[in-house]
Parts: sequence; C-alpha cells; structure tokens
Amino acid sequence: MDVISVIRTKRDRERLSPEQIDWVIDAYTRGEVAHEQMSALAMAILLNGMDRAEIARWTAAMINSGERMDFSSLPRPTADKHSTGGVGDKITLPLAPLVAACGAAVPQLSGRGLGHTGGTLDKLEAIPGWRALLSNAEMMDVLRDVGSVICAAGDGLAVIGAAGDGLAPADKKLYALRDVTGTVEAIPLIASSIMSKKIAEGTGSLVLDVKVGSGAFMKNIEDARELASTMVGLGTDHGVRTTALLTDMSTPLGLTAGNALEVRESVEVLAGGGPADVVELTLALAREMLAAAGLGDVDPAKALADGSAMDHWRRMILAQGGDPDAALPVAREQHVVHAAASGVLTTLDAYAVGVAAWRLGAGRARKEDPVQAGAGVELHAKPGDPVTAGQPLLTLHTDTPEKFAYALEALDGAVLVAPEHTAYEPTPIILDRIA
Amino acid sequence: MDVISVIRTKRDRERLSPEQIDWVIDAYTRGEVAHEQMSALAMAILLNGMDRAEIARWTAAMINSGERMDFSSLPRPTADKHSTGGVGDKITLPLAPLVAACGAAVPQLSGRGLGHTGGTLDKLEAIPGWRALLSNAEMMDVLRDVGSVICAAGDGLAVIGAAGDGLAPADKKLYALRDVTGTVEAIPLIASSIMSKKIAEGTGSLVLDVKVGSGAFMKNIEDARELASTMVGLGTDHGVRTTALLTDMSTPLGLTAGNALEVRESVEVLAGGGPADVVELTLALAREMLAAAGLGDVDPAKALADGSAMDHWRRMILAQGGDPDAALPVAREQHVVHAAASGVLTTLDAYAVGVAAWRLGAGRARKEDPVQAGAGVELHAKPGDPVTAGQPLLTLHTDTPEKFAYALEALDGAVLVAPEHTAYEPTPIILDRIA
Repeated sequence: MDVISVIRTKRDRERLSPEQIDWVIDAYTRGEVAHEQMSALAMAILLNGMDRAEIARWTAAMINSGERMDFSSLPRPTADKHSTGGVGDKITLPLAPLVAACGAAVPQLSGRGLGHTGGTLDKLEAIPGWRALLSNAEMMDVLRDVGSVICAAGDGLAVIGAAGDGLAPADKKLYALRDVTGTVEAIPLIASSIMSKKIAEGTGSLVLDVKVGSGAFMKNIEDARELASTMVGLGTDHGVRTTALLTDMSTPLGLTAGNALEVRESVEVLAGGGPADVVELTLALAREMLAAAGLGDVDPAKALADGSAMDHWRRMILAQGGDPDAALPVAREQHVVHAAASGVLTTLDAYAVGVAAWRLGAGRARKEDPVQAGAGVELHAKPGDPVTAGQPLLTLHTDTPEKFAYALEALDGAVLVAPEHTAYEPTPIILDRIA
Repeated sequence: MDVISVIRTKRDRERLSPEQIDWVIDAYTRGEVAHEQMSALAMAILLNGMDRAEIARWTAAMINSGERMDFSSLPRPTADKHSTGGVGDKITLPLAPLVAACGAAVPQLSGRGLGHTGGTLDKLEAIPGWRALLSNAEMMDVLRDVGSVICAAGDGLAVIGAAGDGLAPADKKLYALRDVTGTVEAIPLIASSIMSKKIAEGTGSLVLDVKVGSGAFMKNIEDARELASTMVGLGTDHGVRTTALLTDMSTPLGLTAGNALEVRESVEVLAGGGPADVVELTLALAREMLAAAGLGDVDPAKALADGSAMDHWRRMILAQGGDPDAALPVAREQHVVHAAASGVLTTLDAYAVGVAAWRLGAGRARKEDPVQAGAGVELHAKPGDPVTAGQPLLTLHTDTPEKFAYALEALDGAVLVAPEHTAYEPTPIILDRIA
C-alpha cells in the first residue's frame, strides 16, 4: 500500500477500498503519511466525494485510531447531543441538566469557540470557579452523581488522562489539518469527524442539531439535510440511536450572543422563563434525547416547571468548582444601537451578530487567544417584532470599547426594518427532522 | 491576502487573480505558505484546472521567484530543446553538438532519470571522466568555446554557484511536493514547471519534444496536444520563439535503452550511422531549432555527414573532463530473449522496455540511488520487422543478474509477433507539429 496510489484513486474519481481507507488513516495517525499527502487527499475527497460505504469505513477507521469510552457501568441510559454550531446557541447549558433531571445520563464533551460561533466551554467559564478540564475519572464521578457533565474534550495537551484524551486521534490530527488547508467544507469529512468523536465517546443515543442559515456552517437546507442524513446513517450503522433536527440559524437563538450573557439567559430558561425560541428548541431536543434513550414517556416541560432541571444545573456547576450563585461578569462598556425608523423588524442577521460579538471580544481568532467573559451582543427585538424609531434594538458589550466601531461595521446592513403593517412570515425554529 | 482564501477560490472553481497567484508563489517560496497548504491548492488546480491567463501568470511568478540567465553576451543565437521524456530518448546527445556545429549556441541544463525514463546526465556519466556539475562560469566557457554544453541544472545542494542554481526556486520546491502528493499529472502545473525553467534559462528559442504513447507521460495525443499548445503559448508570451513536435513513444526510440548503450548509439548517429528513427528525429528537431534561431538555411544533415557534428561532440565531452575515445562500460551479464514464433513483430512496448531497463539497474527508484552504467535493454528488431522463430529479439544487460527474472516479468506481454504477411501499419515518428 502506498499513499500516492490512494491519493490517485480518489483524484481519479474512483472508490477508496476498505483496505486503502484503513491503511491511510492508520499511517497518517502514525506520521508515516505526511501532512501534505493527507491534505491532497482531503482536497480530492472534497471535490470528488465519497459514497456512504466509504464514509462509514473512514469513520470506523478514525474511531479505531484510538480508545473508546464505556458508559455501560452507569445505571442510566446515556443520551448525547451535538450541534453544528450557531450564534447564541447556548442550548447545551439548560439541556444537559434538564435531560439528566428526566433520568438519562448526559456526557457532553465540548469545545471552545473559534470564529463567529461561541463555544460551550467559553460560556461556562464565565461562571466564577468553574473548571472545564476533568480527568476521565472525575467526569465519570460527576456523571454518576449529577447525571450530566459538560467538560473539555481532551486534546492530549492540558491534563494527563483528561476526559476523551485518547478518542479518535486521527480525527484530531485531520481536523487541525483541514482547518489550515481549505478542506473543512466537505460533507463526508464533516460527518465522519463529528460522528467518529461521538461514537468513540460511547453514547447509546445521539441527537444532532444541524443548523441552517447565515450564522451556521450550512447555508442552505439541502446541504444541511445531506449532512444530517449522512450522520444519522453513520450513527445507526454503529448501533447508536441517532436522530437529527434541522433548525433555523438565520437569526441568533434567543436574545444574547456572548459568554456570561448566554449563561444568564440559560439560567432564565432553567428558572421557567427565557426567550420562547430557546425554550422551544431545548424542549424539542430534550424530547428527542429522551425518546432515543428509551425515556419517551417523561415530559421535560415538567422538569423545567418544577425546578428539578435548575436543581441539576446547580449541582452540575458546583461539582466542577463553579458557584451557581455568584454574580456573572459584566463588560466594562456598553453601546446601544437604536432603531432608525418605526415598522417591523424583518431581518437581524445571525452571521453579522456573531461576527460583532466575536469582534467585541466574546470569541477568538486563534486557539490560544483569551475571550472576554462579559462581551457580546444583547438583542432587544427579534424578527417579526414591531419597533419604534429610537427604541433600543441591540446593546453591544465589551471591555475594549475601541472595538465598538469594528463591531458596528459587521452589523452594517444586518438589521432591516420594514414599514408598519408589512406582512412578515416567521421562520419556524425547527425546519425538519431526520431519523 | 491569506492562503485559505486562495485555496478556496480554486476549490470553488473560480479564477485565481494575478495578485493571488503572485502572492501564493512568493509566500510558498519563502516558507510562509506550508507544504500541506500548497498541496491542497495543487490538487484543486489538478481537478478544476487553470485558464491560459492563470497559467501564464503562474509561470511568470515562478520565473520571478529566482534569477534568470543571460546569454546575450554570446556571439551566436541560443537554441534550446526540451523533451517530456521517453524510453531510449538519447536525442539530446547527438542533437546539442549537431546544432552547435550549425552555428547556434545550445545550453542544455539537464536532469537525472527517475522511474522508467532515463536521464541525460546518467547517460553521459557512463563516459569515463565526464562531469555533469559545472559552475555558471564554467558552463558559459564551454558554451562560448564549443557552442554546446550539457550539464546538471543546479539544485542548490551540490556546488555553490552551480549552473542554474538560482533559477525558479518556486518550481523546484513545488515539483518535489507534487512528486509525493499525487499532483504531478496536471497539465497547467506540468506546462508551467517546464516553461518557467526554460524561460528562466534565458534561451532565445525553444523546441519542445512532446512524447506520446505508453512509454511517455502523455498516453494519448489529445493530452499531448493540449500540453504542447499550452507550452508554446507560454513561450511565445515570454518572447521565446517556441515550437513543439508531438512524437511517438509507443516503442523505444532507436535500439537501446540504458546509459552506456545509448551513448554508443548516439556516437553512431554522430558518425553518420545509427537507427533511422533516431536520425530522423534528431534532424527534425535540429531543423526546428535552427529555424527558430534564425539559421533556417543551414542543413543539419550536412553537419552529420561531414563530421563537424562529431567534432563538436568530442570537444564538448573533453571540455567537461570526459574521454571521447575511452571504452564505454559494459554490463557483467547478458541474457538474450528469443522470438517464440516466426512472423511480423507488431508490438514492442516502450513502457515495458523502460521498466525492464530500470529494473536491470539503468534507472533509479529514489533520487539518491546510483545507476549502473552498463545496464539496459538492447533491441534486435523494431515493430514492422519480420522475425524468425529462435532469433534474438532483445538482449538484457546488468551487473546484477539476480534481476533478470524481475526484468523479464516487466516484458511479459510486451512483445507481440503476428503471423507472417499480417498487414502492419507503421506509426510515424513525428505525429504533429505545433507552432
């Protein structure tokens, strides 16, 4: 087996054999196949595609490149969720304790934000004392005691024996390579990357939240549907009960984009309030997870209403060193954007808000950059709402006010107000379900 | 400018802008763009192509990455030749002194063989004492004194100030990368690689010998024609009078493939003899070179007949330390392949003979391997010749007789004898001319 013949096979639009796939993933993990060879193969895959059998084998080879977690010792069924990422997507925060309160075990190995979408760990780190890095044993303890855990997926650097450290090393290496070689946007590679990690994490069931729209990775519903059905197929083939919701990301989710801002909104949801779209999506994903875990007769709305979800949240935060009662950080400076005219807000573009929040300090441009806990964008209206000239539409938050102008630039053209009585057709939050 | 946006442009089937091309070639040469990024771009170019304007700019950027040679101080017009490589292609050896004898200056910066095609320098190094590596000043001296010189194109490693050392460093780097990433077979990259070197070498005129057939890089005439017309366009755009001949490489050129074997045959041609196809192609290329150099009224056949080409050969070899009268090395062992039946030889496959010669020791698998001077394959018949059962068809030569079986394996099915009186349509050696 030699790498050039593998590259040529895909370059010349032929199918990679199972042996070629197993070999190239293993040889790349071991360093025998060089980065420049794998990136040429990744580009050939991006342009010439892989069929379902090739994607399945590619995913299996990445799973087999490392260890697998085993949750079979837990007394509860495990349920996992993965979102492809969006602006204001804080759903993991209320969802994990909510589903735990309903009787499932929810292990959420999460990441940090890069670019215009935030990261779950960055959000939780806004809580004083909260610690993202757990060892594998600590993670199992929290999961056993509380029922849910949200922690850093180990990258082999931070803590010896960090949770998830040995999972799918081939994927970690390939993901970093794709990031710098313009080969991220290949559905077979996206699907196999997400699913190899999730399957190696050992969950029994999985719900995928595939975002569609300007603020999402997938800009149109056809691509999102292809990605979702590829991933559902991969999960099912590996014995993981998998479903997917396609959900709207044309406008931010909820009324906040930013780390502490989103924690505050998540706590509102756990307290029985919060924005309607966040509540609706949290409950919809909870129902999918519970059904997949064999707990379809439990109603998650009750656990929100009776405080048991909030109770699980507090215990989960405490178990990782956080103080659920501590005041959340607030940015040093605010800037309010007012409506220029009266009418109906028809557009509040998710991507623009995401970029603005990022520029204000909520996100990072490079992995090693810090983030500001208080920075972000707060919305005072959502598409469909009537607005009056001069009313506040957005509040920008930052510790670095010299960035206001740069953030406002991102918002140029992103907020549209139509004359009063203009018909507005709301976009549903849940666009489709794939099982 | 950032490299991912350049990769995405070509990945998404758009045109690279002149600024993108200039930047990416320069940044790659400086090491700012990494190998894995350039290989992803090369694969995208291979699969999505470049138009004529992009190829022209790419070539210009590679030329501008280094120095250019200047032959304007020579009293004669310069004429250069490039072959895309074939089996038994020793034409540079008789051609360079022949064209010099006709009044042009012929600087031939040549390479070594890799794989099944031989290298001009490997052939000449079969001559005792001959030295491939010249400094730039030595090369100019030989060119001024003799009129032709064949020497190593510097690779920045062997000799400080070697001829051609500073030419198109971007091409040297990119060529080595393409070699290991399955991205050699892209016509835009092949054309720009060849032409950037040739234009940087500063010749006034250039003849391209584009080989077509099993023993060549281009297996079909359409691809060869596209490559040839791309290169002729690039040369013309840069002020180099450029023409191309498409020539047959379905069977080896002449009756020998191997280093000392080919030197012997070249000397036969210079002495007025030699195989008809070698003589025909040598004269055809010489006429193209002379016409392009403004010496179209000189008849190269006369210089072969009157001994002046041979005289220039002897002076050229002597000037580089070689002894033109020394006995050439002979391999330690020979193995003769006989005709199994009587009839007409219809096929003697170039690729198979090339691989056999390579396995016998005439070529190398890796750049650092040595070659055997005496090894190779000698033909006793050519397609179209009548053969008698039991007559010798091929003689294999090697210093490592344990390789005979391995070489014979390559020849399996490569020699076909049809019944007597079978009609045989000879393939002309020159298939087309592109100007």
